[in-house]
Amino acid sequence: MLIGRICRLGAAGRSCFTLSYFSSSAVIMAKSKFEYVRSFETDDTCLKNCYIVVRLDGRNFHRFAEQHQFKKPNDDRALGLMSRSARSVMEELEDIIISYGQSDEFSFVFKRSSNWFKRRASKLMTHVASQFSSSYVFYWKEFFGEQPLLYPPSFDGRVVLYPTNRNLRDYLSWRQADCHINNLYNTVFWTLVQKGGLTTTQAEDRLKGTLASDKNEILFSEFNINYNNEPVLHRKGTALIWEKREETVSKRMKLPNEEEKEVPVTRSRRRVEAFHCDIIGEQFWEEHPDVLEDDAC
Amino acid sequence: MLIGRICRLGAAGRSCFTLSYFSSSAVIMAKSKFEYVRSFETDDTCLKNCYIVVRLDGRNFHRFAEQHQFKKPNDDRALGLMSRSARSVMEELEDIIISYGQSDEFSFVFKRSSNWFKRRASKLMTHVASQFSSSYVFYWKEFFGEQPLLYPPSFDGRVVLYPTNRNLRDYLSWRQADCHINNLYNTVFWTLVQKGGLTTTQAEDRLKGTLASDKNEILFSEFNINYNNEPVLHRKGTALIWEKREETVSKRMKLPNEEEKEVPVTRSRRRVEAFHCDIIGEQFWEEHPDVLEDDAC
Amino acid sequence: MLIGRICRLGAAGRSCFTLSYFSSSAVIMAKSKFEYVRSFETDDTCLKNCYIVVRLDGRNFHRFAEQHQFKKPNDDRALGLMSRSARSVMEELEDIIISYGQSDEFSFVFKRSSNWFKRRASKLMTHVASQFSSSYVFYWKEFFGEQPLLYPPSFDGRVVLYPTNRNLRDYLSWRQADCHINNLYNTVFWTLVQKGGLTTTQAEDRLKGTLASDKNEILFSEFNINYNNEPVLHRKGTALIWEKREETVSKRMKLPNEEEKEVPVTRSRRRVEAFHCDIIGEQFWEEHPDVLEDDAC
Amino acid sequence: MLIGRICRLGAAGRSCFTLSYFSSSAVIMAKSKFEYVRSFETDDTCLKNCYIVVRLDGRNFHRFAEQHQFKKPNDDRALGLMSRSARSVMEELEDIIISYGQSDEFSFVFKRSSNWFKRRASKLMTHVASQFSSSYVFYWKEFFGEQPLLYPPSFDGRVVLYPTNRNLRDYLSWRQADCHINNLYNTVFWTLVQKGGLTTTQAEDRLKGTLASDKNEILFSEFNINYNNEPVLHRKGTALIWEKREETVSKRMKLPNEEEKEVPVTRSRRRVEAFHCDIIGEQFWEEHPDVLEDDAC
Repeated sequence: MLIGRICRLGAAGRSCFTLSYFSSSAVIMAKSKFEYVRSFETDDTCLKNCYIVVRLDGRNFHRFAEQHQFKKPNDDRALGLMSRSARSVMEELEDIIISYGQSDEFSFVFKRSSNWFKRRASKLMTHVASQFSSSYVFYWKEFFGEQPLLYPPSFDGRVVLYPTNRNLRDYLSWRQADCHINNLYNTVFWTLVQKGGLTTTQAEDRLKGTLASDKNEILFSEFNINYNNEPVLHRKGTALIWEKREETVSKRMKLPNEEEKEVPVTRSRRRVEAFHCDIIGEQFWEEHPDVLEDDAC
Repeated sequence: MLIGRICRLGAAGRSCFTLSYFSSSAVIMAKSKFEYVRSFETDDTCLKNCYIVVRLDGRNFHRFAEQHQFKKPNDDRALGLMSRSARSVMEELEDIIISYGQSDEFSFVFKRSSNWFKRRASKLMTHVASQFSSSYVFYWKEFFGEQPLLYPPSFDGRVVLYPTNRNLRDYLSWRQADCHINNLYNTVFWTLVQKGGLTTTQAEDRLKGTLASDKNEILFSEFNINYNNEPVLHRKGTALIWEKREETVSKRMKLPNEEEKEVPVTRSRRRVEAFHCDIIGEQFWEEHPDVLEDDAC
Repeated sequence: MLIGRICRLGAAGRSCFTLSYFSSSAVIMAKSKFEYVRSFETDDTCLKNCYIVVRLDGRNFHRFAEQHQFKKPNDDRALGLMSRSARSVMEELEDIIISYGQSDEFSFVFKRSSNWFKRRASKLMTHVASQFSSSYVFYWKEFFGEQPLLYPPSFDGRVVLYPTNRNLRDYLSWRQADCHINNLYNTVFWTLVQKGGLTTTQAEDRLKGTLASDKNEILFSEFNINYNNEPVLHRKGTALIWEKREETVSKRMKLPNEEEKEVPVTRSRRRVEAFHCDIIGEQFWEEHPDVLEDDAC
Repeated sequence: MLIGRICRLGAAGRSCFTLSYFSSSAVIMAKSKFEYVRSFETDDTCLKNCYIVVRLDGRNFHRFAEQHQFKKPNDDRALGLMSRSARSVMEELEDIIISYGQSDEFSFVFKRSSNWFKRRASKLMTHVASQFSSSYVFYWKEFFGEQPLLYPPSFDGRVVLYPTNRNLRDYLSWRQADCHINNLYNTVFWTLVQKGGLTTTQAEDRLKGTLASDKNEILFSEFNINYNNEPVLHRKGTALIWEKREETVSKRMKLPNEEEKEVPVTRSRRRVEAFHCDIIGEQFWEEHPDVLEDDAC
């Protein structure tokens, strides 16, 4: 525990409690003298009617993954913890309509009409970063069990605005294409190392300059692996959206002229659902037409 | 654990893996098509040669304090955890020269010449918010022992720039004056409730319209408490700065014409030190002349 | 004419040409020392894929109108000069697709895909303000003939971004509704003064709290004026757009086996056209479908 | 003159006056529906306690100088007109403490405590650009006499903030060093062409890779020109500041027991004065200690 020094006496025994020379009233009057510093804050309101995207990226997660023995090329516990933390963000902050994550990054999309935090960029991104990070540590045990977390990890964030549905979908497509490219590379790389017996340097050399088709071919012809059969979680990442679910719960009720009894009651509840599928094409969006608002608004 | 749906089959059995219809090469080529979305990011570089202050504030900490039975008016465990988390931020991020905290807030000051994260406001504040939040959960046990943390807490943040030493010191004075005002109020309020037997409503009524001198008087004449003898941690909050410390460690060395032996070696190490004292007056700054850079630069 | 002082000798006859003590080379070397100040410029790039609107407003035009005896409630010379200056802006700056003006204000809309000045807000708005202002003085004589311009007028400007066609059209509708409201008020006000013999104070009192229908009624029943027959220039303001025009010009040509002779040649030329009509409803936009780009892009 | 089309009839004779279908009241009610577009304006307040510099640069002034036969390498009429326009800006806008110009650029410095236009960057820079540009056309005749201005010129602008006196002075030094470098080059270049009989291409080749000392040497040994004797207006540019002047004016007064008569009266008046001297060294600033405010504020 951090123990602060309460007082430091100078050579002449001066106390540093200058403030106690003044009466409390003096301090309170002084406060108004200092309050002008508030006017140095600048307004960073996000442009209205644009989607607000907050993207988080892990800081030094290469080292973090090493030190916590993450499995290569994908550690399902780590991916699960990322998604769990993202769900915690969605449940705590209003107006996030979709989030998408892969590897050590997660993007959160606020609806274009959102007025959460008066659309102040700094508040939105720090709140997302904070909730995600505290959740990551809080839920660690659910995914890593007795393996201890060695130190508190951190994420940095940014805000980007997208004016149209097309722009927003292209942003999400960009992240999913990135997931695909990295995962294909990592899958071949670690297969060459783990099953092919290459050193990491040899694997790197082997892949230098190869096209996607070459990588698929290496997997298939040398290791009998069809990349398209690899887990979708790894190939497509995770999209979280809100979905309405009908739930049937049992409730004790007393109907007129009857004994009190258990009655099945159906209610609709909104909850965060995870999808591991293509979000570049039309189908996902056609199946979930409520996610995006209309440009024409 | 969050279990994502791997696939949703439509009425006609269509798979949503539209992407797998394409070859991997197609996806990779597509990525460049989406990459234009990067150009929507805006530059939020902080003005050069200004102090950069990131302030974090607890979200819904009134409720959080209730639910975790924080002691009134000050919980030393909670204050200790705040300072511990702040120290973690200072040790992980470069260029923070001083931080100051009280209650559920903490301010971090980056030196005016800092080029950390290229001075990008979003990166600076999200990284601070993230490191602080993950540390808060990580170090919880050190301060609260077996009392469990019920849910992941969160903080929001902001960035403010100050062009001169005067402005920066006035900012810190403003926060410390705020600490004083709140702590004086809370001390009297909870003394009236805990020792005076008043209800919280009665205490509130009693304090309505009172000046600082009235509050001091209530404490002294009714409860024999001299406010100036209350713990400085509560009255002044916590300032963290870097200090050089001489350390003597023992090292095995072989000097010429001698046997190898243990030799005491002195080395200088920089570490974060906590102070609970007035930072409004001159003394603190005169005793730590290296904290602030010169305006004339 | 401003005559600068070339030199000021101090009491001791010191020259202020400190620089001439140094060799020219020293100055040139010094320049690189100062160049760091460039890094204080901040990036103010406008968000991509949004319409960029620059609106200019006359500074102290109430006084300017008094001093130059503008006719009340509308001076066609002054309105003509505003439009002429706006046309000059459209012809000099690329990518303005429509501009709309009324009274002493004019709005300029850059197309959403514009990359003029790399979308730097400061460059866009200062260039518009500068070109408009120099044109206003330059073309004064065309509209006011021998009546002299007494001093150089000025305009201030701002930039606003609109993400969708709906938002942009609502902006233009807002300005045209403003034109309507002001012009209806001014028309009744000056009719009461000029034809009704009221003082300006009496006219003001008379109109206090009246609705649009009341104002129409005053015009009609007391002065036999149907507001809808007032000049559209005054009621609707001026919209400027680019239009393709077929022009037939005569050109000397020599066709095979013929004498050289004058031949009529048709060519298409883009020019700025002015419209004084409703831009709130659909018709204007249906008749000029090329002005706005599609949201879906 | 621009003649707007009052109406365009479509094939079916539809009028475009859709608005006149509605009553005036409908339009007025509609206005509030559109007014939401105001909330798309963003706040661009300049950071407090920093100097605000607005710099204007001529657009395509190379062409403009050609077409108006500016003398090479310096046209005193053009430089005089620039300074006259800058003086007009200083007299119209509050809080500019110094401006500095050379060639086709001029920088205006607002005092660090200024609250003019609530420190809104867009308003400050557009107003400066507008006032300067209208003045340039307005005062053209004073400097160019009967030589006509062929078209309205334009300037673009930018805003830069400087937190300390050192930073601001380095900015001004940077501009003056730039003046020196360009003027030395241009002086040698045009001397080689005008007196040395070289073509512009030959002069360019001759100067390629030369140092300042080489250029001074060419001037001195080949043309007997001592660069330091060239006009200071050209070598140092123009700094404009406010100065208090004692003025003696004659006033008709009637003193007690005397006839009314002309009496000399002294009064102090603030006016813009021009200096053509070094502003890089200390002397200028020591002689005008009131121009800059203290950093310690």
